[in-house]
Amino acid sequence: MTCKSNADLQAIVDEVRSISEKGTVADYIPALAKVNKSDLSVAIYERNHSCIYAGDYMRKFTLQSISKVLVLALALQDRGVDYVFDRVGMEPTGDPFNSISKLETSIPSKPLNPMINAGALAVTNMIKGESENERWERILQFVSCLANKPNVSYDLEVANSELETAWLNRALCYFMKQHKVVEGDIEELMMTYTKQCAIEMNCFELARIGAVFALNGLDPETGERLIPVHIARICKTFMVTCGMYNASGEFAIKVGIPAKSGVSGGILGVVPEKYGIGIFGPALDEKGNSMAGIKLLEILAERYNFSIF
Amino acid sequence: MTCKSNADLQAIVDEVRSISEKGTVADYIPALAKVNKSDLSVAIYERNHSCIYAGDYMRKFTLQSISKVLVLALALQDRGVDYVFDRVGMEPTGDPFNSISKLETSIPSKPLNPMINAGALAVTNMIKGESENERWERILQFVSCLANKPNVSYDLEVANSELETAWLNRALCYFMKQHKVVEGDIEELMMTYTKQCAIEMNCFELARIGAVFALNGLDPETGERLIPVHIARICKTFMVTCGMYNASGEFAIKVGIPAKSGVSGGILGVVPEKYGIGIFGPALDEKGNSMAGIKLLEILAERYNFSIF
Amino acid sequence: MTCKSNADLQAIVDEVRSISEKGTVADYIPALAKVNKSDLSVAIYERNHSCIYAGDYMRKFTLQSISKVLVLALALQDRGVDYVFDRVGMEPTGDPFNSISKLETSIPSKPLNPMINAGALAVTNMIKGESENERWERILQFVSCLANKPNVSYDLEVANSELETAWLNRALCYFMKQHKVVEGDIEELMMTYTKQCAIEMNCFELARIGAVFALNGLDPETGERLIPVHIARICKTFMVTCGMYNASGEFAIKVGIPAKSGVSGGILGVVPEKYGIGIFGPALDEKGNSMAGIKLLEILAERYNFSIF
Amino acid sequence: MTCKSNADLQAIVDEVRSISEKGTVADYIPALAKVNKSDLSVAIYERNHSCIYAGDYMRKFTLQSISKVLVLALALQDRGVDYVFDRVGMEPTGDPFNSISKLETSIPSKPLNPMINAGALAVTNMIKGESENERWERILQFVSCLANKPNVSYDLEVANSELETAWLNRALCYFMKQHKVVEGDIEELMMTYTKQCAIEMNCFELARIGAVFALNGLDPETGERLIPVHIARICKTFMVTCGMYNASGEFAIKVGIPAKSGVSGGILGVVPEKYGIGIFGPALDEKGNSMAGIKLLEILAERYNFSIF
Repeated sequence: MTCKSNADLQAIVDEVRSISEKGTVADYIPALAKVNKSDLSVAIYERNHSCIYAGDYMRKFTLQSISKVLVLALALQDRGVDYVFDRVGMEPTGDPFNSISKLETSIPSKPLNPMINAGALAVTNMIKGESENERWERILQFVSCLANKPNVSYDLEVANSELETAWLNRALCYFMKQHKVVEGDIEELMMTYTKQCAIEMNCFELARIGAVFALNGLDPETGERLIPVHIARICKTFMVTCGMYNASGEFAIKVGIPAKSGVSGGILGVVPEKYGIGIFGPALDEKGNSMAGIKLLEILAERYNFSIF
Repeated sequence: MTCKSNADLQAIVDEVRSISEKGTVADYIPALAKVNKSDLSVAIYERNHSCIYAGDYMRKFTLQSISKVLVLALALQDRGVDYVFDRVGMEPTGDPFNSISKLETSIPSKPLNPMINAGALAVTNMIKGESENERWERILQFVSCLANKPNVSYDLEVANSELETAWLNRALCYFMKQHKVVEGDIEELMMTYTKQCAIEMNCFELARIGAVFALNGLDPETGERLIPVHIARICKTFMVTCGMYNASGEFAIKVGIPAKSGVSGGILGVVPEKYGIGIFGPALDEKGNSMAGIKLLEILAERYNFSIF
Repeated sequence: MTCKSNADLQAIVDEVRSISEKGTVADYIPALAKVNKSDLSVAIYERNHSCIYAGDYMRKFTLQSISKVLVLALALQDRGVDYVFDRVGMEPTGDPFNSISKLETSIPSKPLNPMINAGALAVTNMIKGESENERWERILQFVSCLANKPNVSYDLEVANSELETAWLNRALCYFMKQHKVVEGDIEELMMTYTKQCAIEMNCFELARIGAVFALNGLDPETGERLIPVHIARICKTFMVTCGMYNASGEFAIKVGIPAKSGVSGGILGVVPEKYGIGIFGPALDEKGNSMAGIKLLEILAERYNFSIF
Repeated sequence: MTCKSNADLQAIVDEVRSISEKGTVADYIPALAKVNKSDLSVAIYERNHSCIYAGDYMRKFTLQSISKVLVLALALQDRGVDYVFDRVGMEPTGDPFNSISKLETSIPSKPLNPMINAGALAVTNMIKGESENERWERILQFVSCLANKPNVSYDLEVANSELETAWLNRALCYFMKQHKVVEGDIEELMMTYTKQCAIEMNCFELARIGAVFALNGLDPETGERLIPVHIARICKTFMVTCGMYNASGEFAIKVGIPAKSGVSGGILGVVPEKYGIGIFGPALDEKGNSMAGIKLLEILAERYNFSIF
């Protein structure tokens, strides 16, 4: 299946591209900082196997926080709903994604939801496997399957760079280890988590993953079930309540599309029953979301009535 | 228009009624404590002017926090979206509905959303009117219109009782006055807010209000526009992200119906394009939501596929 | 008894006066803002009835937070140690003096100590009296006695001005009323508290009060007991652990003199067994302490070995 | 020099011993849990080389948090006052000793003081040395010198046990590493810190260390200067404002002796110019201080007027 360039979509991309100038590229690691700030690409995957795109849709980027929702889908299959939510909450939070305070003030200590770093680390810790390597391979395999891309890989430079500097995530892990929310070796967990964040993809592949969620877990090409329906719905719900960091509430009101963003500038969007959307625009706003990506989704939602509300 | 008893619905009511035994009735004021813990009534208002009910559907209860979403709809009409959200945020919070800490730690000081007490007090403060009395009459008039009930009134005993003991809400008001989030006389604001919470209704009337939101602001009987479409959507979105106190995330996942609850045990539910739901079940869980009401909505969502996710 | 000008002291005053240029005068109410930023006066009251001063020692200023330690001494006499500390804690806090968050997160809700606003409001609420007026007269009478000044009065303009704008203190009061830390009418409490903060004095009179504490409660002129010894010691201890807002720890290390400051720029200092110190220097640092006053005490402590450590 | 049994002191020990029954022994690691709850020993070291004791004064215990004040004295010598307090604050905190929230909410991120775990870890990180081993040897050597005990050693079982379970301290370290408050390898820092906490001593040796601080840094036997006077005073000040965890304020009021406690049940007390006090009583109160130890110091303070206030 191929993706076709679309003039209407290109017009929207051209319209919003300039907004990126006000944003800033994530620069906490050198590997992320070297992207082109004005890049902007989008793909929309329709359920009937067709796909349209605008911008340089083959440009690769790392999933970063977008991976949180994919690994959650796997963990829920591995462990079941009760096991997962005994350890990680379901509530949105008004705090930043990397905050540690609530872990201390909540009784019992439990990350508020799987979309903040603490919760996502706990979720990755739940993936089944005899070894760190097996857990990692299972994640990679699951993502390959969702993206229909056999050779999904990760950006080694990004992963190594993050591994060397992710002190805050280590703090979250050790804090949770104290409270028995995570178990096992923290450096191994950090390695898996860091690699999952560094998985590479282009916006077309990401749009296909969105289509799987749009179809409540079915492969948009073969119709095969890739994710159980109740799990696909849980994932979409989290995209609405917590998918865009602590701008999720505003995004739900202004856009209304279930979505998950990453600091690389990627956004995974889901129009239920209809479309998967993949976006890459690395200039971020202060909350860590792609500026042009959000604007683009806002226009799409308005023009084509994509909001679920 | 009349509402008809429905056997299927009654069967569900009978099924979940016993769950109320584990809950507790709000007892912070005597007027609320004197209800019958095992009461449970529900009405579902369909867009085609029909309505079904189960339980004692004429039993009245006070709106309490349900009023927050109605007054928000009026404030958005009075002041516009920008004015309102300059003063009150759009983000869900992991904190309890009456928490004050985030007002202190957020910069600038601003209630996180209009569904927590601080935000709701600020919203009531935005209602236009020359006097406290005029503001109150406009609220009453708007709610009358939504419920299609000319003589909507409030429970004087509940209102007075709350006014005498609502020290925490006064603390929130004065804190916001310091930070210029609210203005004017605090006791007058407290009076309006307390009366709005004490507005009385039965589950049929509440279901009709739900139908207005389900139809994105249209009167389900006359088709007249009662709320602008963009405002009706904003309200529904807040019901999803923040409607059930700090159990909103869990409710979105398990039920997926836009809803707003009150400590009286009322719940306003909205099935987009289709139904308005009104529930009264005064036995509350620890988060302050009607226990039987939540269970009832969970069963309805599952059986009739009401979830928006 | 009279106070004599002292050349050595004047030299120190001249040395530190210029530091005030970097400070800012409290300007949250107009009445406080109209002072001369470079004013600086100091008096040291010796136990043998002698007193030295430098600067315009007759210049009056309002006590503001300095009153907290005086009213505490009265409340401890009125109610006893156990009653007072059942309602207000004894622990220093890392938070600003007007913070409300800890009231919410502490279980049970209790102000951390009597030197922060919440604690001081609770202490004023404990003063015995049949009416607001009687409570106020008893405070005034007690302060008159400590200062040996029959006609102690308060600055009506400052008091009224604060009463009109002290929204944050009202928030603290109502929050504590909810948790039964304070009782009775909040506006009456606010009135008493506001007047106690507006009590006027010059640095000589303040130094005499310091001498009473230095002598563990004895009148430095007559030897009469004005404060029970155990209460005088409790007050001195709070001056060390919490007297200088959230710069108390640093002040203890750098200066080591039990002291209490106010946002008017006054500081009450106590050199145990020896001296009472009164200072007025209205230019404040960012924590709310007199910049020149702190520097002056630092020099005195170093030169004359005044530190208790 | 030897320490003599003293009947008066023994009477006090006998009087307070029973209070330990209400306390609990630290049991977060097995090595600490196996002590005898009713143990109680005390030694008072006088400046004129004499010493009295009561109870089994040769019973060894680990320093735990008492080590914080000793290592602070060394770090201040190694780095100077400005360097140390650029990285660690001087303010007491109302939070528990192992809390992480304030690190997140304070701007810039900085431990509030060197007596809480975060601050103490940062201080240990400042000790000079080419390697972890050299830093550790310098700490050991400094403590040996203070205790006049050539072969000071640490409890290997306690140290290893803590190292295996101190997840919270690791969380604090990594959080501070993110904010550049600590540098270098965290596991090495954890090793040094854990060993310093496990240094073993009896109450006589601890009392001698107290005497060094009582004499502002002089060896009580030889008169040799072991700690610069300004550093000894800083340490004593921290013992008053932050020495007894978040019961420091209450202890200052009720006892008034500069002191530092550890969860092993040890307390180091300092009566300025006069005595060093060493206590061991492993039954702890809820704040983590020796119950009998505190009571013993309260009686000593009252009977012999040891309070500095």
